[in-house]
Amino acid sequence: MKITRDPFPRSRKVYAAGENYPDLRVPMREISLTNGEQITVYDTSGPYSDPDQNIDVTQGLDGSVRRAWIDARGDTESYEGRRIQPVDDGFRGRAEGRLKVFEQLQRTPLRAKAGRNVSQMHYARQGIITPEMEFIAIRENQKLDELRSRYAHGERDQRLQGQSFGANLPKQITPEFVRSEVAAGRAIIPANINHLELEPMIIGRNFLTKVNANIGNSAVTSSIEEEVDKMVWATRWGADTVMDLSTGKEIHATRDWILRNSAVPIGTVPIYQALEKVGGVAEDLTWELFRDTLIEQAEQGVDYFTLHAGVLLRYVPLTADRVTGIVSRGGSIMAKWCIAHHQENFLYTHFEEICEIMKTYDVSFSLGDGLRPGSLADANDAAQLGELKTLGELTQIAWKHDVQTMIEGPGHVPMHLIKENMDLQLQWCGEAPFYTLGPLTTDIAPGYDHITSGIGAAMIGWFGCAMLCYVTPKEHLGLPDRDDVKEGMIAYKIAAHAADVAKGHPGARVRDDALSRARFEFRWEDQFNLGLDPERAREYHDETLPQDSAKVAHFCSMCGPKFCSMKISQEVREYAAKQGMSEDQAIEAGMAEQSDRFKASGSEIYLEKPGEAPR
Amino acid sequence: MKITRDPFPRSRKVYAAGENYPDLRVPMREISLTNGEQITVYDTSGPYSDPDQNIDVTQGLDGSVRRAWIDARGDTESYEGRRIQPVDDGFRGRAEGRLKVFEQLQRTPLRAKAGRNVSQMHYARQGIITPEMEFIAIRENQKLDELRSRYAHGERDQRLQGQSFGANLPKQITPEFVRSEVAAGRAIIPANINHLELEPMIIGRNFLTKVNANIGNSAVTSSIEEEVDKMVWATRWGADTVMDLSTGKEIHATRDWILRNSAVPIGTVPIYQALEKVGGVAEDLTWELFRDTLIEQAEQGVDYFTLHAGVLLRYVPLTADRVTGIVSRGGSIMAKWCIAHHQENFLYTHFEEICEIMKTYDVSFSLGDGLRPGSLADANDAAQLGELKTLGELTQIAWKHDVQTMIEGPGHVPMHLIKENMDLQLQWCGEAPFYTLGPLTTDIAPGYDHITSGIGAAMIGWFGCAMLCYVTPKEHLGLPDRDDVKEGMIAYKIAAHAADVAKGHPGARVRDDALSRARFEFRWEDQFNLGLDPERAREYHDETLPQDSAKVAHFCSMCGPKFCSMKISQEVREYAAKQGMSEDQAIEAGMAEQSDRFKASGSEIYLEKPGEAPR
Repeated sequence: MKITRDPFPRSRKVYAAGENYPDLRVPMREISLTNGEQITVYDTSGPYSDPDQNIDVTQGLDGSVRRAWIDARGDTESYEGRRIQPVDDGFRGRAEGRLKVFEQLQRTPLRAKAGRNVSQMHYARQGIITPEMEFIAIRENQKLDELRSRYAHGERDQRLQGQSFGANLPKQITPEFVRSEVAAGRAIIPANINHLELEPMIIGRNFLTKVNANIGNSAVTSSIEEEVDKMVWATRWGADTVMDLSTGKEIHATRDWILRNSAVPIGTVPIYQALEKVGGVAEDLTWELFRDTLIEQAEQGVDYFTLHAGVLLRYVPLTADRVTGIVSRGGSIMAKWCIAHHQENFLYTHFEEICEIMKTYDVSFSLGDGLRPGSLADANDAAQLGELKTLGELTQIAWKHDVQTMIEGPGHVPMHLIKENMDLQLQWCGEAPFYTLGPLTTDIAPGYDHITSGIGAAMIGWFGCAMLCYVTPKEHLGLPDRDDVKEGMIAYKIAAHAADVAKGHPGARVRDDALSRARFEFRWEDQFNLGLDPERAREYHDETLPQDSAKVAHFCSMCGPKFCSMKISQEVREYAAKQGMSEDQAIEAGMAEQSDRFKASGSEIYLEKPGEAPR
Repeated sequence: MKITRDPFPRSRKVYAAGENYPDLRVPMREISLTNGEQITVYDTSGPYSDPDQNIDVTQGLDGSVRRAWIDARGDTESYEGRRIQPVDDGFRGRAEGRLKVFEQLQRTPLRAKAGRNVSQMHYARQGIITPEMEFIAIRENQKLDELRSRYAHGERDQRLQGQSFGANLPKQITPEFVRSEVAAGRAIIPANINHLELEPMIIGRNFLTKVNANIGNSAVTSSIEEEVDKMVWATRWGADTVMDLSTGKEIHATRDWILRNSAVPIGTVPIYQALEKVGGVAEDLTWELFRDTLIEQAEQGVDYFTLHAGVLLRYVPLTADRVTGIVSRGGSIMAKWCIAHHQENFLYTHFEEICEIMKTYDVSFSLGDGLRPGSLADANDAAQLGELKTLGELTQIAWKHDVQTMIEGPGHVPMHLIKENMDLQLQWCGEAPFYTLGPLTTDIAPGYDHITSGIGAAMIGWFGCAMLCYVTPKEHLGLPDRDDVKEGMIAYKIAAHAADVAKGHPGARVRDDALSRARFEFRWEDQFNLGLDPERAREYHDETLPQDSAKVAHFCSMCGPKFCSMKISQEVREYAAKQGMSEDQAIEAGMAEQSDRFKASGSEIYLEKPGEAPR
């Protein structure tokens, strides 16, 4: 297995520099169109899509740039760190397995100096704009200024610009805006100080909607490249963050591989590893063992932790008459622990101690919805909403410590109950970013849950959800393979983008408009290359019309060469001009250069031969 | 190519009889579950999925049952009908081709006796409940009564039952309700008196959301079976109606094949055939030629005609500065004709004459949106909305003639502008059923437009759209093949069902709940068979766990056999019971029989061996 490193067709990696911090190299993908234009798009693929980068996954990516930013702040210190133990990889007995330590991937950890808080939220609240924040401001803009004006629609723009439901989407994202959003808790920058390889990104409703991909080790895994490639593959198709949900053996080693080679934030569910350490017996979990696991993962550089701290003892019985009970793995582990000990959830009772750890490394909370519904029938019930309210209370505690926090959400929810989830989350959790799994809008399509959930994801993204956790076609049925990861990612990039357009993210529609113009002007190559999946678009086109000439033909396989509705539209422009559009209007509509040709061609609607005269 | 006739796994065709009309045989699919239950689902697949039916596609399906209903009304007469001419199949020159007349598929047409109106709307307005109406009432109920009570959720039911935005969804569909909805124009029953093979169905916002699939001939077609199988394949996956969008040669013959073998209503865009008759030159179209084409198709039995009668001369220039101009093929033909002659659209000026034809055969109007947007940038603009308003005026004229009418809608619309489409349509078109193409919610994913549009389709279905025209993954790129038709259909069945659940169609959620219960109880076979695509669900499951034992295993590949969140949920039930749930509550939650087993198993969370003791 080789790491996937091919660039997208007619695309190249470009880097934008910062103003406050000139050493910033903010990555974007520039797509060159056949009409001479360039469109830049947000790029999550990291150095892998840059042919100029030499990458050796056994050594990890270069972290020197971010290391310099952190060092410059002067509030961290190197220290020896926790020693890796066989149990970290799930080996409990003596001859059960051999601890795999990849020496080249080991780093000396950083932590906050005593009494210091190294969270981005802490800096933000002190009025400090970090390099991470400026990086993000540039990244979110995607050079929109330039592109927006090129595709302006005049008076129609305002209505097309969306309904934001109270979000605050400025025309231009400034570093100060990033800072203020992080300070307010409305956005988080998952950026552990031990994840130096990171390209910073932000999660918040006033920014582009983000997508998370889940990966996890499998028993058949044989090589470091394969593990890394799962992450690379997901980010190639647009994953903004990746959660490593590995279970079983070699959890620690897998995480080393992924973190040291990942330019996107990595999230985990630490209770999974803790459960392995106690041989899968939830009742045997202790706070001390769990705490040690948090530090282990924080030292490795995990950027956010899913913690099911809202699964309270009193909520557990509320799930008893559900159709599908508790479906969250982490939620059921905690529920099991609570009922076995008849004690309150130790994540809840030790929450302030956890905050101390989080701010020492700048790990963000992703407060897990352990009681999320597993079926439409259980949506928005007392258990789910009770937990959500508790997560809101925990958010206030986290913010007291300046710890960055987002909130996880469902799950399975019929369309008419989706907005209530978003509204209650905003209200109860103080506008902390929401991060939902779908939601699935029907339960009747196993094998197609990327679609059942893509519908709900688009809607909740529009309503204000900041990050969407993807669902693959294998959901409920099996482990996703490479194709499933891609299908899930594309469905969720569609959902996130549809949400950005609908909520009115400035410039989100630039890519739609560029592609639509290419479509109207029969620039087939541009239509392919501006799409989320250029290869598939080309392949589908070529199934019917494989000849190279068809790539510049002024017709497509839908109507064939004889009759084309798009062609007629061009004649309509001529007619409109004759009917009294002013010359200025005509020029504005881009028709001046065409009118002579169309007058000459008369009213014949048979098209020119393929290959002739584009535009 | 063989016609696809395999029944779905563990499914059988059942027929329900009528009360008013005992000869009704209303088809449903009954799925047998491994726990002894049966679930009936709406079945569009016609006689093809009934192994007891002998079908010979060269002879067509049996039409004797509906013929008897029509004869009993005494308002129709047989007549010789129009003679088929070479130009009907697009042959204009003498040696250009040979007219293919399939003698066995020819029927002597019926028409209304002079002065009579045979539309279902006409009967409805006279207070007559036709056999078609009772058939539909039984069909829409899907035996819901029985199933609903089995899956009742008590007090939670009310909230889960949806937000209908003013729709009127009775608990039980009665024949009288069907009649009243058709009389009011809120629903149509596309049922040409010459389409005797039809299993009647209804399109209206107060009924199940329907899905249309487009098919069309291709140059490489060689056999009648292949044409028929396209239609059979689409209906197998749930197409409620099929539009034959054939162009080119042999249009007439293809339509014979499809109509004589179709149990679902067939729609067409007659201007496509008319254009072929004039060699593709839109300016050469005349009202007389078009009128003759309408009669040709009405005699064959086409159930609804898409007519772009709202493309008015004054709207055409409004499209001139659009990003994608006019993208509707029919719309652009009419626009071309209007501007070439500088005359008003002949479909508009002759609309009352068209109504006379429609009511003679009971063809329903599908008033086409020739000016629908072809990109987000053009959504809800003056051209689109001007046309919609005109369609509303035409609806009033159609209703004056008791002609059934639905309205076509977009297209490409960002999420935040979708509801406006539905609201204006309801307002301007007097609640005539809306029938939309998607809408696509973003333009950036060629190759995945079944998903970009499935999102919009689910939403507009929820808001009140009565029928969704599917979009396949090949949209904008090429001609859909068999796999694309299936992918498009499944995406749209998901959208329609999610809409039914959200708007609160009584009992829509029964199938979701049955599947969720199967999922929770590890009845894998039932989970597969209750889904929209049992084969794919099974295949995905078996990729990871192919052994037969895994089909009854109390775990899945997500967590593996060691730890299972669903299993823990069952322990939670026990705990809740101990904590003071009453015995009655416990029994209601279905736990009584399990509690002993769980008490015996103690707190060990390792699971029993696969294959042991299902529920």
